[in-house]
Amino acid sequence: MSTCPDLVTFGEALVRLSPPEFRRLEQTKTLNVHVGGSELNAAVAATRLGLSSSFVTRLTQNPLGRIVENSARELGVDTSHVVWTNEDRVGTYYIEFGASPRANSVIYDRADSAIARITPSEIDWVAALEGAKLFYTSGITPALSSSAADATLEAIQQAHAAGALVCIDLNYRARLWTQSEAREVMTEIAEQADILFTTEEDTFRVFGIKAPSYEDVAHQLAERFDLRIVAITLRENPSVWRNQWTAIAYETATDIVHRAPTFDIEVVDRVGSGDSFVGGFLYGYMTEGVAKGVRYGVGMSALKQTMPGDLCWATLEEVERVLDGGGLRIVR
Amino acid sequence: MSTCPDLVTFGEALVRLSPPEFRRLEQTKTLNVHVGGSELNAAVAATRLGLSSSFVTRLTQNPLGRIVENSARELGVDTSHVVWTNEDRVGTYYIEFGASPRANSVIYDRADSAIARITPSEIDWVAALEGAKLFYTSGITPALSSSAADATLEAIQQAHAAGALVCIDLNYRARLWTQSEAREVMTEIAEQADILFTTEEDTFRVFGIKAPSYEDVAHQLAERFDLRIVAITLRENPSVWRNQWTAIAYETATDIVHRAPTFDIEVVDRVGSGDSFVGGFLYGYMTEGVAKGVRYGVGMSALKQTMPGDLCWATLEEVERVLDGGGLRIVR
Amino acid sequence: MSTCPDLVTFGEALVRLSPPEFRRLEQTKTLNVHVGGSELNAAVAATRLGLSSSFVTRLTQNPLGRIVENSARELGVDTSHVVWTNEDRVGTYYIEFGASPRANSVIYDRADSAIARITPSEIDWVAALEGAKLFYTSGITPALSSSAADATLEAIQQAHAAGALVCIDLNYRARLWTQSEAREVMTEIAEQADILFTTEEDTFRVFGIKAPSYEDVAHQLAERFDLRIVAITLRENPSVWRNQWTAIAYETATDIVHRAPTFDIEVVDRVGSGDSFVGGFLYGYMTEGVAKGVRYGVGMSALKQTMPGDLCWATLEEVERVLDGGGLRIVR
Amino acid sequence: MSTCPDLVTFGEALVRLSPPEFRRLEQTKTLNVHVGGSELNAAVAATRLGLSSSFVTRLTQNPLGRIVENSARELGVDTSHVVWTNEDRVGTYYIEFGASPRANSVIYDRADSAIARITPSEIDWVAALEGAKLFYTSGITPALSSSAADATLEAIQQAHAAGALVCIDLNYRARLWTQSEAREVMTEIAEQADILFTTEEDTFRVFGIKAPSYEDVAHQLAERFDLRIVAITLRENPSVWRNQWTAIAYETATDIVHRAPTFDIEVVDRVGSGDSFVGGFLYGYMTEGVAKGVRYGVGMSALKQTMPGDLCWATLEEVERVLDGGGLRIVR
Amino acid sequence: MSTCPDLVTFGEALVRLSPPEFRRLEQTKTLNVHVGGSELNAAVAATRLGLSSSFVTRLTQNPLGRIVENSARELGVDTSHVVWTNEDRVGTYYIEFGASPRANSVIYDRADSAIARITPSEIDWVAALEGAKLFYTSGITPALSSSAADATLEAIQQAHAAGALVCIDLNYRARLWTQSEAREVMTEIAEQADILFTTEEDTFRVFGIKAPSYEDVAHQLAERFDLRIVAITLRENPSVWRNQWTAIAYETATDIVHRAPTFDIEVVDRVGSGDSFVGGFLYGYMTEGVAKGVRYGVGMSALKQTMPGDLCWATLEEVERVLDGGGLRIVR
Amino acid sequence: MSTCPDLVTFGEALVRLSPPEFRRLEQTKTLNVHVGGSELNAAVAATRLGLSSSFVTRLTQNPLGRIVENSARELGVDTSHVVWTNEDRVGTYYIEFGASPRANSVIYDRADSAIARITPSEIDWVAALEGAKLFYTSGITPALSSSAADATLEAIQQAHAAGALVCIDLNYRARLWTQSEAREVMTEIAEQADILFTTEEDTFRVFGIKAPSYEDVAHQLAERFDLRIVAITLRENPSVWRNQWTAIAYETATDIVHRAPTFDIEVVDRVGSGDSFVGGFLYGYMTEGVAKGVRYGVGMSALKQTMPGDLCWATLEEVERVLDGGGLRIVR
Repeated sequence: MSTCPDLVTFGEALVRLSPPEFRRLEQTKTLNVHVGGSELNAAVAATRLGLSSSFVTRLTQNPLGRIVENSARELGVDTSHVVWTNEDRVGTYYIEFGASPRANSVIYDRADSAIARITPSEIDWVAALEGAKLFYTSGITPALSSSAADATLEAIQQAHAAGALVCIDLNYRARLWTQSEAREVMTEIAEQADILFTTEEDTFRVFGIKAPSYEDVAHQLAERFDLRIVAITLRENPSVWRNQWTAIAYETATDIVHRAPTFDIEVVDRVGSGDSFVGGFLYGYMTEGVAKGVRYGVGMSALKQTMPGDLCWATLEEVERVLDGGGLRIVR
Repeated sequence: MSTCPDLVTFGEALVRLSPPEFRRLEQTKTLNVHVGGSELNAAVAATRLGLSSSFVTRLTQNPLGRIVENSARELGVDTSHVVWTNEDRVGTYYIEFGASPRANSVIYDRADSAIARITPSEIDWVAALEGAKLFYTSGITPALSSSAADATLEAIQQAHAAGALVCIDLNYRARLWTQSEAREVMTEIAEQADILFTTEEDTFRVFGIKAPSYEDVAHQLAERFDLRIVAITLRENPSVWRNQWTAIAYETATDIVHRAPTFDIEVVDRVGSGDSFVGGFLYGYMTEGVAKGVRYGVGMSALKQTMPGDLCWATLEEVERVLDGGGLRIVR
Repeated sequence: MSTCPDLVTFGEALVRLSPPEFRRLEQTKTLNVHVGGSELNAAVAATRLGLSSSFVTRLTQNPLGRIVENSARELGVDTSHVVWTNEDRVGTYYIEFGASPRANSVIYDRADSAIARITPSEIDWVAALEGAKLFYTSGITPALSSSAADATLEAIQQAHAAGALVCIDLNYRARLWTQSEAREVMTEIAEQADILFTTEEDTFRVFGIKAPSYEDVAHQLAERFDLRIVAITLRENPSVWRNQWTAIAYETATDIVHRAPTFDIEVVDRVGSGDSFVGGFLYGYMTEGVAKGVRYGVGMSALKQTMPGDLCWATLEEVERVLDGGGLRIVR
Repeated sequence: MSTCPDLVTFGEALVRLSPPEFRRLEQTKTLNVHVGGSELNAAVAATRLGLSSSFVTRLTQNPLGRIVENSARELGVDTSHVVWTNEDRVGTYYIEFGASPRANSVIYDRADSAIARITPSEIDWVAALEGAKLFYTSGITPALSSSAADATLEAIQQAHAAGALVCIDLNYRARLWTQSEAREVMTEIAEQADILFTTEEDTFRVFGIKAPSYEDVAHQLAERFDLRIVAITLRENPSVWRNQWTAIAYETATDIVHRAPTFDIEVVDRVGSGDSFVGGFLYGYMTEGVAKGVRYGVGMSALKQTMPGDLCWATLEEVERVLDGGGLRIVR
Repeated sequence: MSTCPDLVTFGEALVRLSPPEFRRLEQTKTLNVHVGGSELNAAVAATRLGLSSSFVTRLTQNPLGRIVENSARELGVDTSHVVWTNEDRVGTYYIEFGASPRANSVIYDRADSAIARITPSEIDWVAALEGAKLFYTSGITPALSSSAADATLEAIQQAHAAGALVCIDLNYRARLWTQSEAREVMTEIAEQADILFTTEEDTFRVFGIKAPSYEDVAHQLAERFDLRIVAITLRENPSVWRNQWTAIAYETATDIVHRAPTFDIEVVDRVGSGDSFVGGFLYGYMTEGVAKGVRYGVGMSALKQTMPGDLCWATLEEVERVLDGGGLRIVR
Repeated sequence: MSTCPDLVTFGEALVRLSPPEFRRLEQTKTLNVHVGGSELNAAVAATRLGLSSSFVTRLTQNPLGRIVENSARELGVDTSHVVWTNEDRVGTYYIEFGASPRANSVIYDRADSAIARITPSEIDWVAALEGAKLFYTSGITPALSSSAADATLEAIQQAHAAGALVCIDLNYRARLWTQSEAREVMTEIAEQADILFTTEEDTFRVFGIKAPSYEDVAHQLAERFDLRIVAITLRENPSVWRNQWTAIAYETATDIVHRAPTFDIEVVDRVGSGDSFVGGFLYGYMTEGVAKGVRYGVGMSALKQTMPGDLCWATLEEVERVLDGGGLRIVR
């Protein structure tokens, strides 16, 4: 493991518990255990494709905390800058998988987690960011608590200082904060960002921006916050099990809107798609620029949705196969 | 638990055994255990939405009998009027879940169950029906045996005597009796009913009624049996995993045919849909009348089909969300 | 369900998550879901044997809260006096099952649960205790928070007022409070108790009482707190999978120490043994007095340890069979 | 498959449903599926060791009936003389696995099965027994119904006519018939038997024979019924999970009591031990006589108890390894 | 089991390991165990419908080898001509089930299996083929090794000598040999075949034949290799979970192209469809000729795709029901 | 992850497949997936306790190879020096868990694995060993193939050159090579070793050394091969589920035989005990010397046997608790 990761991400990863076989939570006698969280998911996706990544968080020193660390390490993400505590708890969440007309449903049990109780200067950012080219966090991290918001701002400043590009996903979570709380903090953060990931809906909820087209939304965001790149993922969900998925990315320097193919997805588990898009985008962007970024982001996140859990276990070869229109025959 | 339930239902509940993962029964080494039966299912649906309900049956005093009682109680249905015996057995059934072109398939092993061997006057109907506003049974109960048919007629008469509305679902089961047997008994029952639930197909098989439209079928039934309300559920199943589902309800007093939205359903388990419709309808009907009844019946039964087992674990809030066109986004 | 339960219990029930097959929590990808908590466990045991019981707690209105209620109802325990809230959370705990020399291991995640945040006068004790003959709570409930301690004291006073015997299990939990905190509160509680359940170890940790024999411990407790009955359970655990289990009960009125047979137990899951002892004792005591109480308590709790989960699914007939020295042949 | 099996067995095989992980039947949401029945179990054991065997029964033509046939075939037992019907049902039974002091517990649901409804002359015994050297049935088959008893007697007569040795296991089942019913029928059967398998307890319950030693019991049986061989299995069960197991066989011709080593068994599933003893005995007896018979019977049935299900999946090599005192090291 | 099977098949059957619930192989902690291989699959399908079949292969004598034999026997396929060895290994393969856009994915671990190491004259073909009317193998068997290719040619010659029709499925496997290797061997084999099963794609890859229509492909094959019948299966897979499936069969003698209905399939597991087509075709062909063959082949293989595993557990009645357009209602 | 691990291990790790619930391999329809191999197991144990470790092997680049790497990383073992290939395969093995008198049973399917086909100079040992204090491999690695033996000798020489102590476990595997083959190679290896781990039995099989006591065996080994330390693990297995376990270590420099407590173990999975002893010993030895080494080795490996899989998931705190005689109470 290089001590100089390409990508450093910062946020919360939770232990996720989900009933199998479309059971309701009330019905189930077993739960599947996964680990996920926007910033871990993005680090995993980037790592699977070839970037080296490090995930920074604060964890309680108990089996649940170790499950989170183990899961990151299993997929090759460095955890050497995780801060450990004997206090607090590891956040958990429950997800039920639905079927039309029953939507998937989430119950968070993440209050007072170790990362929600982080305070600035607990993390040695100079060490954690040494050599990093990219820093990523999402709107979830500052929403966890006001001290977490402070720690997020500290991280972003340190990332700039370390010469890393600051990448942000709006990821608005209504159960964590109000739209006005989000607007205040995310405005401050977006102003320091280089690359912004979002959806049309989050843009409206957080910044009140609504426009006739995705491209317009991207333009407005780029302009308002002086961003290098704005990437927007687009989902159509005519049913729970079948979605269409694509993304665009607007690059300010060239004033080009880059597009990716639209995938018709048989959805096994859509959680973490946006995060896998981030990871795939950053890999593509770092290797060949925005055009590749948006394509690899969409390919990676399309594959994510076909496998259970928040993390994307696809390989570079598989992403390239679906982007090349590789068919659905069994190779044998 | 109030001693005066809004709804009393009477019939058989079986232990249901089903292979996971679309396995054939011949292939499987494990079976999932559920409990179901039309009258229990309806009581559960009504209870989940807010009516108080009591399920009356006859059960063998052994772990299988207790599984049935436990399952009813778990979902809040009163079982204090269940008759227990040390004789007979608890009915079971096996269901295989298919995929087009393989239909779901059921094997009943319910002969000689405790409820099939019930005889009139075993149940203290005066106590069981005290304060009840609704009584519900289906065409399955009298089909179990001739003594069960006698007991069903006794129950209906007692329900009338207790001032409860008598609600009947035709629920024709070809494996339990012939169409002519069904016609004879169900005619006698329908003549004493206030509300009739059925499908176009059952109406034809039991009463020989066929008409150019669902509305006509409802009209003819209402007229022939002097019914207050006739509700008909409608299913289109272009494939096993994808169905369309709705219902209508004709109200004699107003001569209005009430309709509900049609749901496009990704089918996890369609067993018990009609029963959840009954439960949802009765809740809606008791709170605001037929128009609400048909809507809540369809909403409840649409959700039922997205979860495994015969019982519907949806909540009032969830039913209202799908009826309000709540989308398929994950709320978080 | 009678509106006048024989037994009312008050406390916390948690959703319990445990890895199968002796896996460590760190290793597992699935968790089994159970529900348990001292006061629920005791109510279930009493109900299985024939007392009517009601469990009073405070629960968050979400699927996890409903899992707790459903589980109580499934086993016949009345939940109509549960207080529901949209705030707070449902406590959870994780348990790993060990093998010698690895002890079972528990991780609590119960802070800030709905019941921990209860305050006096939230529960309508007059209604909840109407007609009750017994009231039971354990040292866990007041340990949850100081407002829970106040609520516990309120409950005890109301129980006295309602004419119920007050039954307490010391149940010291070092992770919830210190020994001195426990001593202060539990002294106040014990002084109001009629029947005290405990172990030699808890008696020492909470009250500092140590004596050459179990009988002496019981005597001292009875005297110090002016108790009617003191029951002490006794476990020898030469290994994790094999324990010896029995109990004694000292009755002040007769000055007799009642004993029960010692069971050699192949331990499947020892959690909740003490609580099943309480339930079995109270059933025996209410039907025939202390001698039967201690025997049925030990029989019930011995059986508890042979089945997974905190709750005891044994029947009266099974308890009597093991007390009668019924052998280990398969009956067929 | 040879058309001339060494061994023909006749009786009922049931679909067996058992909860995993020591769960009670009332608790479980999944059941493991096995197939078993004394005469099938014995045929399987003999086949695993090298005899060719055929299992004769009557089965309902549905997936459950096919599960029984498939299971026999999977283990190499011929099923070409099974009689198929579209009527009746396939018997099932439920078994809970216990732990001291909770014994294993069985619930039969086998009434009115296809084999219970068999009548004489339904089976073409001339064809089924062609070339057979051994015929085996147990006291369960005639206990199923009086027509099954008639069919059993017919089978035994035909076996004699075909030149096969008639082998009988008393296998008294109190849930199927009374001791006096059993005595009448089993006396008639034993009088026609060549080899009798039993336990001390069954001998007492069916024939009222009690003697100071196992050897005496065997002597008395051999004398009363003019038997060639009497084999008695012996179990000590100080706990559910740990038993001692051995057997003796008395050979009339030589007046020798043959013994086998006693095995200390860690019991996974003791069901079918006696039947595996029969199969192992018959293999040993046919290849080298009674001394080998009793040894291989005990070796095979000791191994049976270490694996789940009624059937013994051990191999000849494994039986010889345990009889040779092969240790418990992992071979690798 | 007749000693004269209608159908003898020859090839490899593997132990197949697949993750449940759409998990990636990298993610899974459990694997489902199935058995499959083109020639076993075909024998099973034919046997389920009513032909007697025998599967010939070479297996290592260990539990894995026995799993293969047991699986064949369980479904009624004779295994008495399997050659057993203590050397070599049993081939395995892993399959991941995907969802659009992720295709199913296979990893073979079959090198150096016992059947790959077979040499001519190891099998007693005279005995194995006695009375056989049909012999079937696929292009996989000769691809396993050059000695396996020799053994395949020997088998084909012996089949001709025994008077059996020689039936071949091209089944090109790119991971086993190159197209030019396949072309050389399969040309020699096809020239000796009576009935050829293939797909358009395999025909092109192996023989370089491409034509404007399926019918043309069949014509060209029939002519080039002097075949009696050429059957081509046709799949459209717009998504992983939803396929269209049909087939045609060209009969040289009548110059007729027989067609079957096209099935819209909800795909549970498409592996083994072509093989089930072969089995269904041969059953239909032997009972009523090519027209029935193609219909029953398609019906059988359509049903195959709705159940997990390589083998088809459908019954004749079920095939006829789907061919008769039996709907998707639950029969009850 | 430090680039200078304390411990470098070299060998094979396999994907392990095991039936749950004591099922035979022939019976099971599911397999549990674990990863194990002596040298990986030892690295994991050392890492869990606090040493940094790196595992060096050669793996095929496919999901199975990645499972091995992921598993190592999950537990914190560095894999950056693994050599990847597109050829060969990943070794697998099957293990059945027994019960007395049925021993556990292993089937290896590891021939021609990527590591068996390794040749010298494929690994950059200078980089891999930089800064390492300890190098560990076992007698399994050279047994894989003669090129693997060469590569092992190369590794040992490089380890010496890098200044690491060379630690060897004899680990004789009769299925991989003969005793005389082992003797030749292991003699050469032992002569270069600093620390030797073994059992009495392996010492006899490989070196023909037999002595009246363990201490003598250790002495003789130390003398013959000029070793710093000889550690011998000692197992008594009166039954499969219950073993006694301890170890001694002879230190040449002090001529002291260090002992550890004997643990009475309820065995969940004894595979990998010796390897966990190695890891625990090395941790203890590096921190405080041989006396601590043997104690921590025994504590770690005793705990290993209580958890499923080859790897030990215990923590330093848990090891110290069992060494301190921490009881079997649940801490809560």
